[in-house]
Amino acid sequence: MIKVIAFDGDDTLWDNEIYFREAENWFCGLLEDFLPAHSVERELLKTELHNISLYGYGIKAFMLSMIETAVRITDKKIPAEAIEKIVNYGKGLLDKPVHLIDGVENVLVSLKPKYRLVVATKGDLLDQERKLKKSGLLDYFHHIEIMSEKKESDYAKLVKHLDIKPEELMMIGNSLKSDIIPVLNLGGHAIHIPYHVTWAHEHVDVKIEDGNFRQVERISEVLNFI
Amino acid sequence: MIKVIAFDGDDTLWDNEIYFREAENWFCGLLEDFLPAHSVERELLKTELHNISLYGYGIKAFMLSMIETAVRITDKKIPAEAIEKIVNYGKGLLDKPVHLIDGVENVLVSLKPKYRLVVATKGDLLDQERKLKKSGLLDYFHHIEIMSEKKESDYAKLVKHLDIKPEELMMIGNSLKSDIIPVLNLGGHAIHIPYHVTWAHEHVDVKIEDGNFRQVERISEVLNFI
Repeated sequence: MIKVIAFDGDDTLWDNEIYFREAENWFCGLLEDFLPAHSVERELLKTELHNISLYGYGIKAFMLSMIETAVRITDKKIPAEAIEKIVNYGKGLLDKPVHLIDGVENVLVSLKPKYRLVVATKGDLLDQERKLKKSGLLDYFHHIEIMSEKKESDYAKLVKHLDIKPEELMMIGNSLKSDIIPVLNLGGHAIHIPYHVTWAHEHVDVKIEDGNFRQVERISEVLNFI
Repeated sequence: MIKVIAFDGDDTLWDNEIYFREAENWFCGLLEDFLPAHSVERELLKTELHNISLYGYGIKAFMLSMIETAVRITDKKIPAEAIEKIVNYGKGLLDKPVHLIDGVENVLVSLKPKYRLVVATKGDLLDQERKLKKSGLLDYFHHIEIMSEKKESDYAKLVKHLDIKPEELMMIGNSLKSDIIPVLNLGGHAIHIPYHVTWAHEHVDVKIEDGNFRQVERISEVLNFI
């Protein structure tokens, strides 16, 4: 019955959130003469959330939000050297090696002969393509779907675009909010694999009761349910 | 024989490049105490071209390149106020009204019953979706394809993704380099509609002789060839 299996990229196929946590720590250090770390962190999150509707997700949006936050919380006293450091740090993020999550490749090898596999992810198109290329997983996927948001209406568009019915889609990802709940609401199937770090914006506190839903600890376990 | 007609977005369906030209003039004005306008312009283009492989296309990339250029050419003397102005100017670009190019809607009305229409464009996903929504043209298109580059290999991916053969694709756009030449090389059809402003990076000087190629002055004229 399932025709397409869509995998989230960040923190499902490869590590991602840990680099943003590292970046936040670095950014707090950069501004420690102006504000204590927990306040910098809070201000940065505030800027990011405020900018999502304009910038969307991804590293370029994160860079611009760091710059904006630095200007604001230093009351425009931030020196240009620090701005340059932020730009360079962000460029470093765009050039990180890609670290696959354990077991990913085995799962793809098993599923590829039977299903159309796609990556369905938020973020910068070029950056996600770069990660997919660097990951060595490119050949397992029919294509990569970059989504500006992962709400129910976005999955409805995805399903239309894939020319399938919602119940023919299985989504696998680490975010209940973005990968699981909207897909279940649409009538699709979803498997949740929690990651050890979750961005505050992605955190939800719910208990899901749905016959189309599974939760596993490791990606290798999805093969028990497909 | 043609199944899918793909339209470039920027400067084919709606005005775009003129806003970037305005932005460049504004940016040169911001830095006029440091460097003459033509040097600022040259330095900005240098930064942009250098960053394309990392940032891709779009307004966020442009904002980051303006910031980087401002820091570099002022020898790190740019005050934080000016950085803030750049960020705000960029946000304004992301919130511009969308001005349709004359005749676009008539063409789409005529073609929609007979072909699958898509938008195939570079730039920020969210920004291009915003423009498509604001344009009122959303319902004419099956979906929007955001491409990180528009080289022959990218069109090969597009064709695969659309499940058609190259000769079943017609591309309509304003850039010979990005919309026309790679599609013809792949064996597809292409119609060129020059726009009155072209970004230096998109400029090519060639004469095309190909049975699958047409050039028209106005988008309404494409109906003579489809």
